[in-house]
Amino acid sequence: MTAGGQPPLHPEVAPLGWLLGTWRGEGAGSYPTVEPFRYGEELRFWHVGKPFLAFAQRTWAVDDGRPLHAESGYWRPQADGRVELVLAEPSGLASIYEGRMRAGEVELATVTIVRARTAKEVTRVERSYRLREPDLLAFRMAMAAVGQPMTHHLAAELRRTP
Amino acid sequence: MTAGGQPPLHPEVAPLGWLLGTWRGEGAGSYPTVEPFRYGEELRFWHVGKPFLAFAQRTWAVDDGRPLHAESGYWRPQADGRVELVLAEPSGLASIYEGRMRAGEVELATVTIVRARTAKEVTRVERSYRLREPDLLAFRMAMAAVGQPMTHHLAAELRRTP
Repeated sequence: MTAGGQPPLHPEVAPLGWLLGTWRGEGAGSYPTVEPFRYGEELRFWHVGKPFLAFAQRTWAVDDGRPLHAESGYWRPQADGRVELVLAEPSGLASIYEGRMRAGEVELATVTIVRARTAKEVTRVERSYRLREPDLLAFRMAMAAVGQPMTHHLAAELRRTP
Repeated sequence: MTAGGQPPLHPEVAPLGWLLGTWRGEGAGSYPTVEPFRYGEELRFWHVGKPFLAFAQRTWAVDDGRPLHAESGYWRPQADGRVELVLAEPSGLASIYEGRMRAGEVELATVTIVRARTAKEVTRVERSYRLREPDLLAFRMAMAAVGQPMTHHLAAELRRTP
């Protein structure tokens, strides 16, 4: 907004209202092609009164705080309980996800992934966000990439910051 | 970064360093399918020391400040003068752009556009960012969409905020 005041949440976004806010925590990553690693994460969801949530995420190495992954995009809940997610990543990937939302739970999988000429190949990604407590969010992600079959990649627990 | 201090700009990003910062201004939009309109715009470019720029934009109606468009993504400059742009839009589009960067000028066009099931059809987008003065940026965008041929759509002038 250009001048003060948060607009009311769009009714179509209400089923995802439990995601709103800034979440911070830690996660663990593994994949057949990399050494297991731990990471810090910040996840933000916000809205502007329109029928989507904006979303930005960044992660960092727990040892020295150097930035690792980032992503940003938009969540488009639909009246029939479906959710569309449009995502951009600095690794050169852009994706359209589809999934279902239930109370405190969203599961999503890519329907289309496109990539910049210099980006690595990612075939399919599945991700879930689950509210474990009112301010505790569990995230899981699996992917088929760089010739590997669908394999667990990331698990994180994040707390909503006041 | 998790703890204070801005990392140095990655050398591969230096050719786009003139974009860094927050820009604000106004623009005019037109298209065969809509009434001409004026809009306010904020454009932010930042970096985390890695070989990309992060990017977020939002626009609002000049009359009542209601939010109009938004987009976010990442710019990936290449050593050969090419630039890749990965972009997400709440309208349900994700795009890969390619283009060329020169001193104070970037021109980009989509190489791939994918869309969520409920999004409008956009066939091709061309955009340019040109530095007119050290803190004055000119933006232009044309697109082929909803059955229309490539047609001018947006022009804006933005000032870098201190």
